[in-house]
Amino acid sequence: MDELPGALGTSASLALRLGQAVFAVASLLFMCLDIEFYSYTAFCFLVTIMGLVIPWSLTLAMVDAFSVFMKRPTHQSSLLSMIIVGDWILSFLSLAASSSTASVSDLLIASNGSFCTANICTRYQLSAAMAFLSWFLSLASSLFNLWLLPTS
Amino acid sequence: MDELPGALGTSASLALRLGQAVFAVASLLFMCLDIEFYSYTAFCFLVTIMGLVIPWSLTLAMVDAFSVFMKRPTHQSSLLSMIIVGDWILSFLSLAASSSTASVSDLLIASNGSFCTANICTRYQLSAAMAFLSWFLSLASSLFNLWLLPTS
Repeated sequence: MDELPGALGTSASLALRLGQAVFAVASLLFMCLDIEFYSYTAFCFLVTIMGLVIPWSLTLAMVDAFSVFMKRPTHQSSLLSMIIVGDWILSFLSLAASSSTASVSDLLIASNGSFCTANICTRYQLSAAMAFLSWFLSLASSLFNLWLLPTS
Repeated sequence: MDELPGALGTSASLALRLGQAVFAVASLLFMCLDIEFYSYTAFCFLVTIMGLVIPWSLTLAMVDAFSVFMKRPTHQSSLLSMIIVGDWILSFLSLAASSSTASVSDLLIASNGSFCTANICTRYQLSAAMAFLSWFLSLASSLFNLWLLPTS
């Protein structure tokens, strides 16, 4: 089997996983630090999903790191399908969470600062942007692994 | 090639496509009829995406109907990949639109009726629910066709 960059067990995949985790952490920090986010359902949803994405991405990053540094590729078909399904579900959830957050923060800004100060509104938007980036990387991982599935 | 229910050119696929179109139309009607939806970005986004989903689903429903009633299956690999990519993009967009709409209407309801009356808030929520159902059927179509791709 030829090695596909970005699929499970390659260094590109390791980079994608680390990117997902970093963006998810950034999104959480922008949302949680010193803000009372829990008065809005959409923001709670975002925090929950990002809290799921971080351990998932870090676990798979460890699998990739093991595979890259120990030169022992892990290509079990059953493991791969589980990872694809998980990636898939998480990518859908993080897309839903980030678009909810983006639209709610947009609405809060449109209400002319009666709900949040300009500084905090910007942080909501940044959090949504980080979640979008995390979604994008998660989708990329999922697609690369899906490509690999028929050949493994 | 064995026939997969739900893939392009089967009666199950025809049903899925018609379901998508019906739910998208229902979502549009709940959102647009007698409501000034265009003051909220999320609602405009939903209307745009549902306006894209309807012609797409109806076109593919016609392709399926042709294939079912004329007994002439259309399994060109290039056509199939175009349809999968289109389904994919539309399903992501409709998920984003429906979750945005759901979160914004939730926020409007939480503001105790200062932005919308109870009747209209319920219609926003129904519209989001219909868009979710349309997304779900669109995802199902996309997955069935994806399954078919390696065998065609």
